[in-house]
Amino acid sequence: MVGNTFGRIFRVTTCGESYAGAFRKNLDIPKELFGGLMTIVDGVPPGIKLTAEFVQNELDKRRPGVGRLDTPRKERDKVYIFSGVMEDDITTGAPVGMIIPNGVIEDEHLNKHKSYKELIRPGQAGYTFFKKYGQYADNIGAGRASGRETAARVAAGAVAKAVLDDMGIDVIAFVTEIHGIKAGNIDYETAKANYRKNEVNCPDLEAAELMIKELEKIKAQGDSCGGVVEVIARGVPAGLGEPVFDKLEATLAHALMSIGAVKGIEFGAGFEHARMKGSESNDTPYYDESSGRVRFKTNRAGGILGGISNGEDIRIRLAVKPTPTINITQDTVNMYKLTNVKESFNTRNDPCICTRIYPVCEAMVRIALLDALFMAKGYRALSRNIDGRWDKL
Amino acid sequence: MVGNTFGRIFRVTTCGESYAGAFRKNLDIPKELFGGLMTIVDGVPPGIKLTAEFVQNELDKRRPGVGRLDTPRKERDKVYIFSGVMEDDITTGAPVGMIIPNGVIEDEHLNKHKSYKELIRPGQAGYTFFKKYGQYADNIGAGRASGRETAARVAAGAVAKAVLDDMGIDVIAFVTEIHGIKAGNIDYETAKANYRKNEVNCPDLEAAELMIKELEKIKAQGDSCGGVVEVIARGVPAGLGEPVFDKLEATLAHALMSIGAVKGIEFGAGFEHARMKGSESNDTPYYDESSGRVRFKTNRAGGILGGISNGEDIRIRLAVKPTPTINITQDTVNMYKLTNVKESFNTRNDPCICTRIYPVCEAMVRIALLDALFMAKGYRALSRNIDGRWDKL
Amino acid sequence: MVGNTFGRIFRVTTCGESYAGAFRKNLDIPKELFGGLMTIVDGVPPGIKLTAEFVQNELDKRRPGVGRLDTPRKERDKVYIFSGVMEDDITTGAPVGMIIPNGVIEDEHLNKHKSYKELIRPGQAGYTFFKKYGQYADNIGAGRASGRETAARVAAGAVAKAVLDDMGIDVIAFVTEIHGIKAGNIDYETAKANYRKNEVNCPDLEAAELMIKELEKIKAQGDSCGGVVEVIARGVPAGLGEPVFDKLEATLAHALMSIGAVKGIEFGAGFEHARMKGSESNDTPYYDESSGRVRFKTNRAGGILGGISNGEDIRIRLAVKPTPTINITQDTVNMYKLTNVKESFNTRNDPCICTRIYPVCEAMVRIALLDALFMAKGYRALSRNIDGRWDKL
Amino acid sequence: MVGNTFGRIFRVTTCGESYAGAFRKNLDIPKELFGGLMTIVDGVPPGIKLTAEFVQNELDKRRPGVGRLDTPRKERDKVYIFSGVMEDDITTGAPVGMIIPNGVIEDEHLNKHKSYKELIRPGQAGYTFFKKYGQYADNIGAGRASGRETAARVAAGAVAKAVLDDMGIDVIAFVTEIHGIKAGNIDYETAKANYRKNEVNCPDLEAAELMIKELEKIKAQGDSCGGVVEVIARGVPAGLGEPVFDKLEATLAHALMSIGAVKGIEFGAGFEHARMKGSESNDTPYYDESSGRVRFKTNRAGGILGGISNGEDIRIRLAVKPTPTINITQDTVNMYKLTNVKESFNTRNDPCICTRIYPVCEAMVRIALLDALFMAKGYRALSRNIDGRWDKL
Repeated sequence: MVGNTFGRIFRVTTCGESYAGAFRKNLDIPKELFGGLMTIVDGVPPGIKLTAEFVQNELDKRRPGVGRLDTPRKERDKVYIFSGVMEDDITTGAPVGMIIPNGVIEDEHLNKHKSYKELIRPGQAGYTFFKKYGQYADNIGAGRASGRETAARVAAGAVAKAVLDDMGIDVIAFVTEIHGIKAGNIDYETAKANYRKNEVNCPDLEAAELMIKELEKIKAQGDSCGGVVEVIARGVPAGLGEPVFDKLEATLAHALMSIGAVKGIEFGAGFEHARMKGSESNDTPYYDESSGRVRFKTNRAGGILGGISNGEDIRIRLAVKPTPTINITQDTVNMYKLTNVKESFNTRNDPCICTRIYPVCEAMVRIALLDALFMAKGYRALSRNIDGRWDKL
Repeated sequence: MVGNTFGRIFRVTTCGESYAGAFRKNLDIPKELFGGLMTIVDGVPPGIKLTAEFVQNELDKRRPGVGRLDTPRKERDKVYIFSGVMEDDITTGAPVGMIIPNGVIEDEHLNKHKSYKELIRPGQAGYTFFKKYGQYADNIGAGRASGRETAARVAAGAVAKAVLDDMGIDVIAFVTEIHGIKAGNIDYETAKANYRKNEVNCPDLEAAELMIKELEKIKAQGDSCGGVVEVIARGVPAGLGEPVFDKLEATLAHALMSIGAVKGIEFGAGFEHARMKGSESNDTPYYDESSGRVRFKTNRAGGILGGISNGEDIRIRLAVKPTPTINITQDTVNMYKLTNVKESFNTRNDPCICTRIYPVCEAMVRIALLDALFMAKGYRALSRNIDGRWDKL
Repeated sequence: MVGNTFGRIFRVTTCGESYAGAFRKNLDIPKELFGGLMTIVDGVPPGIKLTAEFVQNELDKRRPGVGRLDTPRKERDKVYIFSGVMEDDITTGAPVGMIIPNGVIEDEHLNKHKSYKELIRPGQAGYTFFKKYGQYADNIGAGRASGRETAARVAAGAVAKAVLDDMGIDVIAFVTEIHGIKAGNIDYETAKANYRKNEVNCPDLEAAELMIKELEKIKAQGDSCGGVVEVIARGVPAGLGEPVFDKLEATLAHALMSIGAVKGIEFGAGFEHARMKGSESNDTPYYDESSGRVRFKTNRAGGILGGISNGEDIRIRLAVKPTPTINITQDTVNMYKLTNVKESFNTRNDPCICTRIYPVCEAMVRIALLDALFMAKGYRALSRNIDGRWDKL
Repeated sequence: MVGNTFGRIFRVTTCGESYAGAFRKNLDIPKELFGGLMTIVDGVPPGIKLTAEFVQNELDKRRPGVGRLDTPRKERDKVYIFSGVMEDDITTGAPVGMIIPNGVIEDEHLNKHKSYKELIRPGQAGYTFFKKYGQYADNIGAGRASGRETAARVAAGAVAKAVLDDMGIDVIAFVTEIHGIKAGNIDYETAKANYRKNEVNCPDLEAAELMIKELEKIKAQGDSCGGVVEVIARGVPAGLGEPVFDKLEATLAHALMSIGAVKGIEFGAGFEHARMKGSESNDTPYYDESSGRVRFKTNRAGGILGGISNGEDIRIRLAVKPTPTINITQDTVNMYKLTNVKESFNTRNDPCICTRIYPVCEAMVRIALLDALFMAKGYRALSRNIDGRWDKL
């Protein structure tokens, strides 16, 4: 409730920042193990296979430094499962604790960050953190507003993925627009087939080439740009979401709008609804003999009706703003001295956050969906008794 | 947590539906007083003036039947403050309970709704409620998914308004697009000057005329259409919003995406960020001598940086889908018998929800902002001691 | 979270006080219907029979004025189910809203209360409410600290009872001590057999006679006294309660210690454990052929091990302090003027709260147990599909 | 909400168990650093000095193996502050993450625990965890029901202590009864003067001698015993606690009854109220010239009236049951095979938990009080701006 916890029954709590630990001295443990991110995932059902490799695989999706376009920073997103898993990597029902150490921070890098401490970096959170927390706010490298924080979300999302995989619920995110260059319409099958096929993770392979060229150009200018990430969730049963205030769109929007650079969200046809008539907007239901259930001929609703899932794909589009840190001199303010100054913030950065944010979007959708499922059904419904049957309680 | 409560410290809980009470017999109180909506508003500071007239004034903004365009339904949104207020209409710190009775429901209207009970109304929540709650779900007139539910939100939002007025925080919502007809850019001053000047509450008076003509045409077709509502909050101090998961965008999005027909939300430049460079997207800060504080030359961030308010106007755009109930025959399904059928749902409806939804948007933004303020500062900070000074506690 | 809501999945929110409405003028509804208590019960499963008579039956248990010993006040605990129930009194899954009007307050009574407004009544909450909320705190008749608030709890508890009855879970409360006069050990069968057989609801019928005599003596002195209430819950399945912080003892204690006059709580042998050895305290398990499950030879644990129910009766004892309002002159303070004064507070009161508090204890245990059950299993587990089978979701 | 989080604004989340990590292989970090307890403390105000030494000092109070009476287990409660603290050990407003590794677990010890996996240990949580979580429940050394879990609470409580120390609020816990041997009445001054003066931390030094002799006798028998722990909180301002359901007694009882072996709680005179008249139970208020505030001549209320603190010492008594693990053969059940068996559980244990539980009681009271304070006042009230003045926000 104070901001570092998400979820009601499947609950994720995180802490940590980029440079915690960088200042510690005389520790009796290796410095590269110290300081970093932690997450505690509560409400994990017992009996789920969860290995560090499985979590690492998700984390590796957001790792910078693997492509030409990404920041040259070397992040050390090595995850350790600290608790909640016993022999043979099976969850016990206890909360899963995970640690992602920051590793050794180089002094040069730290000093550069420190030199910017008093300045407002345009587009960044330093100023608002200063207004909120005062002079003690962590203003070395963005603290809790740093993108680094999202590594803990991805680790927690991997736990949700382990459960959802068992249930046949699949969540996939990809990039469909970068600096105005748009992909064609992407369906679930195409998204799966071309997942992570290129550096921008755009399933429209031709558009991807154009995007990459555009990013190289922008990077050469020392500038950055925005884009759009889309998410599809398939296999979500009808019935998730709690009316009135916790409609599925509301909790998914909460989950996704909490990601740093996201400035807009649409479900299904989204803002296109503003140009439609009711006769165009309504999805037509029909009884589908083969599946034995009600289906819809179109999906302008994005899989959610009245705030409750209807069994169709959940479809979400997210507006991602440009990386605020750019290598271009900008007017700004020294917020301690209240003087107007000029500065170029030469720290390492990604030209477009979209290429790194999509695993975070997947993680947050998984966490929010599993929480909605547990709210609707009770997470102990997954608990099996000694004979492998559902526990009657 | 089960969906009918919103807020952490300033907390709103609601219940009620359109036709509760319509079936009751042998009651010893007048039938028109029975059944309807209730709301309990917790976390109200003591010492705030709150009259029924003040709340009624907000409720009247969403009343149908006042314009040519609205539904001919006569809703009876008469509010009674039931508790939490003592002599001279001053709050005590106890939760404020309010009641909005449904009044007498005509049998003819009720019977029409009952005749549709087994059918999926395209675009509506009946199907998903049925999948969630089974055969006992209230499927007479949409139950908790009915727009009528929002009257309770508006009443609760009026309580938030009473507090925010004291603090100099103003929230205003208006319509800027209907079925593709767009208003020009609206600033706060124009929105205030032209607030509710026309039936569509569009501050661009010329665009409003076109919108009204378009709505008359669509209404004549028995159809409906979507639009865009915008919200501006002025006077919000810097520092509201809780990193990481409860960023101000996240809680505002949660609040607003919980409104029935809303399918998308943008803050500041929103999806336009996808077409911008960082050098275009970043708002330039400067020290403003006259106000003695940091200001920003532009407001593409929509007043929120790193999930925390920066002192500029908070600006939000909302995609509103067309009213799903239309007087046009549609293909659909009898969800009890699982047969494909055709039906036109001749109930009374608004051709565009935008014209009625804006007071609900104002209410939800007020509730979410006040809750964010109390989280940031503690709601007892408003409590004054017997001498009128802040209570030291 | 601000105090007027209890529960995580089965959630009860209440508002109202004794004299809200007493000051209203020019209302267009009958004054006896106005002002009072409201409760919104969220998380109610669909398909549960819930009549006003069923709720009223629980409310009548706490009604004063029926016995020689009780306060001569006439409370008007008439309950109206305002929402959440449709035709044939079946719940829909929507929140159940209920209203209990205060009825007409006599001016004489109100004026007496007002005359005490500035004085601290020893043992009562007026002083602490004043320190918390300042001069605007409701200090006419105790406001939210009044025992009258518990009527809303009992109404909400009746909803929980309707669900628990279906599940075969029974909760019963009774009095076992009044001013040092103790009943013998009461088992579940005796409690059921002698439930409400006398004015003090003590199942030990001989002890009850002594208690009644003692109360008459104390009442004649204008004084009051304390006692002990016990609660037994039978039929609770093993597995309820969430380690670590939401152990079943913790949430039950939270529920019960929130009742005004309760100053202590014990589970099973409680404080007697301080005089025991481990070999005396441990309950011995055995496999019971007839029931096919593990049972325990004794129940010093009170049905809870490691914070989780073990399938045995849950047994709770509660310390209830004497009614603080007595007709005896006491030293006290005018908290506005900060002067020492003497006063006898001649308002109507019960000589011992135990005789009226037991239905509140039943209500809170039911609410807390159902919430624990829904946490453990998911409240939708109760939702049935159209064929009466459990909904697969 | 799923049990591993406590608090609303000052929020503590924990995870970890005794033997997590014991089964891991091929880790690339030293094994003694791996597996153990984690806690994330959210809502920590910025600008508070918080060193690892300060936290360690609290942890050392619960360390076994320092006295003749304690378990010979060597716990390695070495704490690392992982995040939330920057240069000079000052908090930033970000959540504080802490780690307490388990260190190396000896195989012999682990194997003994594993050999008991299928058996119900009388008085312990293994059976109820098995019923709740099924066969995958951690049943090696009690998992989340182990007393080891409380180390994370004590670490979190130390963070609360750092804040409360600044505010002049002091919390102290001590032992007043062991196996029926009772200390005299202990006031705050005596408790402070004799704090931790003997192995049982009983401030009545003569009673302590008798208690120690009794414990030696019981230990020699392979048995254990129960006792009573008392807590005093001094300096708590009037006004903490939220009516109706979150009265200060309710949240404190929730906090304390969540500690493993606690089976009862009393505030002030507690169960003695059952033997009192109102004229004896009411505390008499008076205006105290010297302090300029209202005081009470007695404190039978234990510092709480109407669920809100009244400015007097908060006084709590806790019933602690005997350690269930004893070296005496007991009848029990193999819960996998459902057969009746006999077993003596020869693991290392404390003869009386009281001697180790008091720092946990201190921690939980501190956490609950700080959370109540932040609810009442807003935790940002502590936030100072750059000039050291309170931030206006």
